[in-house]
Amino acid sequence: MTEPKAKAIHYTDVPALTFGDEAPGVTIRWVIDEPRDGAPNYALRVIEVAAGGHTPRHAHPYEHENFVVEGEGRVLIEDTWHAVGPGSVVFVPAGVHHTYENTGAAPFKFLCGIPTARHMPGAAS
Amino acid sequence: MTEPKAKAIHYTDVPALTFGDEAPGVTIRWVIDEPRDGAPNYALRVIEVAAGGHTPRHAHPYEHENFVVEGEGRVLIEDTWHAVGPGSVVFVPAGVHHTYENTGAAPFKFLCGIPTARHMPGAAS
Repeated sequence: MTEPKAKAIHYTDVPALTFGDEAPGVTIRWVIDEPRDGAPNYALRVIEVAAGGHTPRHAHPYEHENFVVEGEGRVLIEDTWHAVGPGSVVFVPAGVHHTYENTGAAPFKFLCGIPTARHMPGAAS
Repeated sequence: MTEPKAKAIHYTDVPALTFGDEAPGVTIRWVIDEPRDGAPNYALRVIEVAAGGHTPRHAHPYEHENFVVEGEGRVLIEDTWHAVGPGSVVFVPAGVHHTYENTGAAPFKFLCGIPTARHMPGAAS
């Protein structure tokens, strides 16, 4: 475990990573995480989806906790679409298929929290 | 444990609770939590601080992960103030004293994530 260390930054201080063809027009910034910050339980990421972009349609064995910061989009949870915008809160349990799409002309920005490695299924406790 | 259940809501769909004299002008909405949503690892709260308001200056044995959504404020982490605004990310490790103040004329809104009960210090694993 990394020793926990307080910080106050702007999310744009963290490099934006891309996904490639899996998620066109999408960047992710790991703004709080265990390896760098010593966050013991949860990793916080800021995801930006350009106009016309979308995240992968997938499922994984851990949950998402999302909060929409800017822009307009929609999220598919299993077989139901939900329109989302600033202030929307989405909880996607482990194993549930989902994808986010930007439906507007401006960037669509949302927070995406996931468990840190020690709380991932199969991790040593 | 509550069975996890997907949801897509607006944060204002969740009732705003007050703190009383401990935190004047502050409301909190538990937008994702274990007891209601079955979120296994992390509880997400939206905190709003009215102009002139502040959160308690305190410390506790679990971390905060914060993201500022709207407004202007400052956060005291131990003995250092940090100016924060939209897009600011703050990590407050367990045991570190902190307080948030609204320094603007509009509401100051931020997200505050904490571990769910099973990851609290002393909880049965």
